[in-house]
Amino acid sequence: MMRQDGRAFDELRPIKITTDFVKFAEGSCLIQCGDTMVLCCASVEERTPPHVAEGTGWVTAEYSMLPRANRERSKRDISKLKLSPRSAEIQRLVGRSLRAAVDLTKLGEHTITVDCDVLQGDGGTRTASVTGGFIALSLACRKLVEEGAVASNPIRHFVTGVSAGIVDDTALLDLRYSEDSRAQVDLNCVMNELGEIIELQGTGEGRSFTLAEQQELVRLCAKGNRELLRLQRAALK
Amino acid sequence: MMRQDGRAFDELRPIKITTDFVKFAEGSCLIQCGDTMVLCCASVEERTPPHVAEGTGWVTAEYSMLPRANRERSKRDISKLKLSPRSAEIQRLVGRSLRAAVDLTKLGEHTITVDCDVLQGDGGTRTASVTGGFIALSLACRKLVEEGAVASNPIRHFVTGVSAGIVDDTALLDLRYSEDSRAQVDLNCVMNELGEIIELQGTGEGRSFTLAEQQELVRLCAKGNRELLRLQRAALK
Amino acid sequence: MMRQDGRAFDELRPIKITTDFVKFAEGSCLIQCGDTMVLCCASVEERTPPHVAEGTGWVTAEYSMLPRANRERSKRDISKLKLSPRSAEIQRLVGRSLRAAVDLTKLGEHTITVDCDVLQGDGGTRTASVTGGFIALSLACRKLVEEGAVASNPIRHFVTGVSAGIVDDTALLDLRYSEDSRAQVDLNCVMNELGEIIELQGTGEGRSFTLAEQQELVRLCAKGNRELLRLQRAALK
Amino acid sequence: MMRQDGRAFDELRPIKITTDFVKFAEGSCLIQCGDTMVLCCASVEERTPPHVAEGTGWVTAEYSMLPRANRERSKRDISKLKLSPRSAEIQRLVGRSLRAAVDLTKLGEHTITVDCDVLQGDGGTRTASVTGGFIALSLACRKLVEEGAVASNPIRHFVTGVSAGIVDDTALLDLRYSEDSRAQVDLNCVMNELGEIIELQGTGEGRSFTLAEQQELVRLCAKGNRELLRLQRAALK
Amino acid sequence: MMRQDGRAFDELRPIKITTDFVKFAEGSCLIQCGDTMVLCCASVEERTPPHVAEGTGWVTAEYSMLPRANRERSKRDISKLKLSPRSAEIQRLVGRSLRAAVDLTKLGEHTITVDCDVLQGDGGTRTASVTGGFIALSLACRKLVEEGAVASNPIRHFVTGVSAGIVDDTALLDLRYSEDSRAQVDLNCVMNELGEIIELQGTGEGRSFTLAEQQELVRLCAKGNRELLRLQRAALK
Amino acid sequence: MMRQDGRAFDELRPIKITTDFVKFAEGSCLIQCGDTMVLCCASVEERTPPHVAEGTGWVTAEYSMLPRANRERSKRDISKLKLSPRSAEIQRLVGRSLRAAVDLTKLGEHTITVDCDVLQGDGGTRTASVTGGFIALSLACRKLVEEGAVASNPIRHFVTGVSAGIVDDTALLDLRYSEDSRAQVDLNCVMNELGEIIELQGTGEGRSFTLAEQQELVRLCAKGNRELLRLQRAALK
Repeated sequence: MMRQDGRAFDELRPIKITTDFVKFAEGSCLIQCGDTMVLCCASVEERTPPHVAEGTGWVTAEYSMLPRANRERSKRDISKLKLSPRSAEIQRLVGRSLRAAVDLTKLGEHTITVDCDVLQGDGGTRTASVTGGFIALSLACRKLVEEGAVASNPIRHFVTGVSAGIVDDTALLDLRYSEDSRAQVDLNCVMNELGEIIELQGTGEGRSFTLAEQQELVRLCAKGNRELLRLQRAALK
Repeated sequence: MMRQDGRAFDELRPIKITTDFVKFAEGSCLIQCGDTMVLCCASVEERTPPHVAEGTGWVTAEYSMLPRANRERSKRDISKLKLSPRSAEIQRLVGRSLRAAVDLTKLGEHTITVDCDVLQGDGGTRTASVTGGFIALSLACRKLVEEGAVASNPIRHFVTGVSAGIVDDTALLDLRYSEDSRAQVDLNCVMNELGEIIELQGTGEGRSFTLAEQQELVRLCAKGNRELLRLQRAALK
Repeated sequence: MMRQDGRAFDELRPIKITTDFVKFAEGSCLIQCGDTMVLCCASVEERTPPHVAEGTGWVTAEYSMLPRANRERSKRDISKLKLSPRSAEIQRLVGRSLRAAVDLTKLGEHTITVDCDVLQGDGGTRTASVTGGFIALSLACRKLVEEGAVASNPIRHFVTGVSAGIVDDTALLDLRYSEDSRAQVDLNCVMNELGEIIELQGTGEGRSFTLAEQQELVRLCAKGNRELLRLQRAALK
Repeated sequence: MMRQDGRAFDELRPIKITTDFVKFAEGSCLIQCGDTMVLCCASVEERTPPHVAEGTGWVTAEYSMLPRANRERSKRDISKLKLSPRSAEIQRLVGRSLRAAVDLTKLGEHTITVDCDVLQGDGGTRTASVTGGFIALSLACRKLVEEGAVASNPIRHFVTGVSAGIVDDTALLDLRYSEDSRAQVDLNCVMNELGEIIELQGTGEGRSFTLAEQQELVRLCAKGNRELLRLQRAALK
Repeated sequence: MMRQDGRAFDELRPIKITTDFVKFAEGSCLIQCGDTMVLCCASVEERTPPHVAEGTGWVTAEYSMLPRANRERSKRDISKLKLSPRSAEIQRLVGRSLRAAVDLTKLGEHTITVDCDVLQGDGGTRTASVTGGFIALSLACRKLVEEGAVASNPIRHFVTGVSAGIVDDTALLDLRYSEDSRAQVDLNCVMNELGEIIELQGTGEGRSFTLAEQQELVRLCAKGNRELLRLQRAALK
Repeated sequence: MMRQDGRAFDELRPIKITTDFVKFAEGSCLIQCGDTMVLCCASVEERTPPHVAEGTGWVTAEYSMLPRANRERSKRDISKLKLSPRSAEIQRLVGRSLRAAVDLTKLGEHTITVDCDVLQGDGGTRTASVTGGFIALSLACRKLVEEGAVASNPIRHFVTGVSAGIVDDTALLDLRYSEDSRAQVDLNCVMNELGEIIELQGTGEGRSFTLAEQQELVRLCAKGNRELLRLQRAALK
């Protein structure tokens, strides 16, 4: 099968990472994966939510689409007075993924909130949020170290995310919207730099899938995550 | 490792399914998995949401915890004016899982809403909702056939869900709360009667996990799902 | 007039009370009055709302219908973002009734919240909530005494509730839905074990009513409440 | 017992009714019962809610306190994003009471909404809303007749409301706030011009009460309602 | 151009100010400007919002329309679950205007909230709220002085507001609704007793306007504000 | 007075306009005014709100700050369940300004919504939203013409906005945040290409101001708007 944009079945879209895209956030980047464009901002606050043990920190994420990020304009959450359930699902995934990257005891009593705002959506926004969110988070942690607010860098793992899917019974890495919208199976995989899994979400949208197919999709994601890791290292060097 | 309740590592908790627990819903059951207790009610309405193509139907799910389903009382969503993000995540999973069980074109212009209300929560409420929700859904579909509202039964697959996790580096099937709350890895798996995957969600809560561990957890879930399938068949015979 | 279910004009529906229906609440019961089925859970918290004087406690109630408790499915409050006004009215009635049962100064600085969730509604849900709610409340108070958290049992009165109404110009006790929906007058009465009134709410739905009719309805309720009291004593013995 | 303001036990506070207090509403009045001051406005719309049968009309009410109607300023509902439960309870009572005054089939497909906004609250605001709301409603109905929008006046009964209560074991008519706040029993009674009951709500706030006491309170209310009826007739002549 | 009500182009509508219209607020008035009628109540609380420096006070305003203040009934904010954006805009204007009247350091740690509730709206409600709100605020400040809660009167300026507009290319003072609804330009101006500007808001509704036209409108407002100032002094003497 | 960034008193910050910053919106630009950065997207829909006359169109605007656009992170509107009152005020201003730019009868039955999302805020975000919003709006109108959806371009005026203020008693054009936060007077002015005023909003924050000062500020804005007009023409050529 020939992909519309000429990519190989296991090839990522072009990735562009612009660090410090905005200047007030303790860490930020604009991540572009093909036409998907997410602004990730990490904000540090010197307080933690009630459920967090004394002396330790917290990492959380929020995710939102700008109204015209997509082909059709969608109403803002506030005009419907409810957080989009899709956003609720995604920001929980991003939050868990980024929390796994950090040693919360080393973070001290700080909360880092990573805002992932999708300026343009063309598939893969949740995994781009993980990958870009990790960069914003790392820059914020680095700043905490530089300012002496934490003794040592609380980052314990790199974290990247990518999706793969089955389209016309073929497994493909990093679906763009035109592929995603007709995928039979869609799988998102968040990994650390050792290739271990942090989050895995697979959905049979058009049909169910076998354990063998699932493994193939994870292997594709592993390849994509290795490349994203390399780009993260470059962006953070 | 000895499990607290003496179960083998690959053993389900005792399951009890009471069909027609309430009488107004077109289909209903109370499902008990150990101390977890979920009331599942399927309601049929003769209209479909705007995004659904003419002539086809829709299946959706809602999930909620009663305030005192858990060890601590939690506030009702309405008193916080927001759907719990956890509930939002779960009801999307349950909805996708149950939708996969149905041939929506055979369903005609009906919407079936499956309400999963947790009366008591002791781990595994989301997968119990899938397993019990399928029974409520099946009963409602059967009624539609009996009343002549649809020509043939729109159910195309049985659907069951179960969780597995890694506790103290041991893979265990069907975690109860006291296990779940200290699990290192938690994985939910929804399957059809062929053992194919419909939904898969794995989370490294305490640590990341390897592809091999992930496969082991899916295999445990496959075993649990086979037993749940047998119980579903018995409840629906 | 012959009642549909063959009851005498002053006869209650069959009542079934299952105490400790759920295990986490400090007190709970499932109360069934004919086809009406309400789960009542009493939760104890060691704090009181701001308006409560130091050293004294508080008792409050919440009431809600599950979406498919009735003949038609109704939307959840959270999806409409507003507490059903009917629920608001009812939970104020239940709260006042149960508060009257307790000596708040003996309760100490505890709040007991009694959640009344209607699993199935066939008329009389608000008075079933009072009767069942009292049992949950009593069990929770007993537990507080057993645990030594309060010095003596703060219950000062038994509290039961029942409705009566005028259907086809005949006064009837304990209306089921098919009677209630065509009642001309509907009256709810909450009483203590001395037969004294705690709450009284009468509504002329189809027509106004005389003081004599009102008294007749209260006398019917008094009879029903005496029987409910006997059942409460049995359930709590 | 001497009442603070020198009234006899069965004496109303001074009542003042100013019809047409505002000019846009189809009917309006400002009703003052002692220091209680409620603006009642009836608005006619040429449509009915979905649950109303074709060809018939609807009457409903809304009730609200201005923020500084009371001794303490209270926040507006909108700043708490929830209708005050007390307002919800009251506007249901007022709506049922006023609906009982009207032959909805004669009203045709009109909705009349009676807004009762409390400018100053000193006890008895809900019954003042009923009494004043009836005047606004009557004026609006009269206008519909004059304009030929309805064939004959749909008012079938006058409706008035008043409260009585037990203070220091003495039954008193028309409690003002300083009495109401220490009443042992509080009872509201809505009646028509025949002295028949439309709504009755009694609450044992400090203690329970006997059927004999309840009857005494209703008789006091009946006396008060007769006087209010005379004032309504005068205001509407 | 002849104005509908015979006024000169630079003539205010008849103004009537009734101080102490309600008795619980620390300061209140009913202000009538022609058929526009606004109830203004100032409430004093002994606490300040978090953003206010220690030892200083705060002044804020809330603005709302009663549902039937206008030709058509409008829904209450709470039934739409959102503050009307128009009200949000207006109460920010009124709040800034009244805050400018007060030396917040002299006010001490008090918050004065001025509620402006429009009982009837016929144009100019926002500027009537400023003019009437100032009177309520002044009365509340006077009371604080009399009670010894503040050492000296914190009022530093009188504040009045009025509108002017261009209708049929003619500049007119104090538009009533029938003029306002077809105005080409609408300008609101809040001034102090020196004729200096505190707030200025001009909008080209039907067309844009020149700087010369804008100055002419401000001069008209200045004349109107001088007269309002005289009326304020009389009301407060 | 020397300005912190060395600008003359009547000098704009550097302006950068990137048209078509995102690709799905019918028109878009990223406008940067110094460090202020606003993404403006115009979306066309083929329907109009109910209050719009048949055959004519509508233009509206929405304005929002991303959570970390500022020095401190602010919570999202949705997490507070209310539109920020400041945003409500601003989007009404932007909407009126852009509506004035368009001949709505030429627009036909289309609604153009201009979303102004502030990625970074350093003062002047509301006027940058007007200036950038006009570009997005113009591009969308041009596209409607090119697609034949409207017969002729409905734009009738260019529209730009800028602020001026009095800092240390000196009138300055285009305040950045560090100036704005200590301004005595702040004035926003929206003009068309003829230098006529469309919207004018002046606020005495630290002190009141004279008519002469007000005119001086408008003249400064007129100069700034002329330069912005030149930049708009260049961006749209």
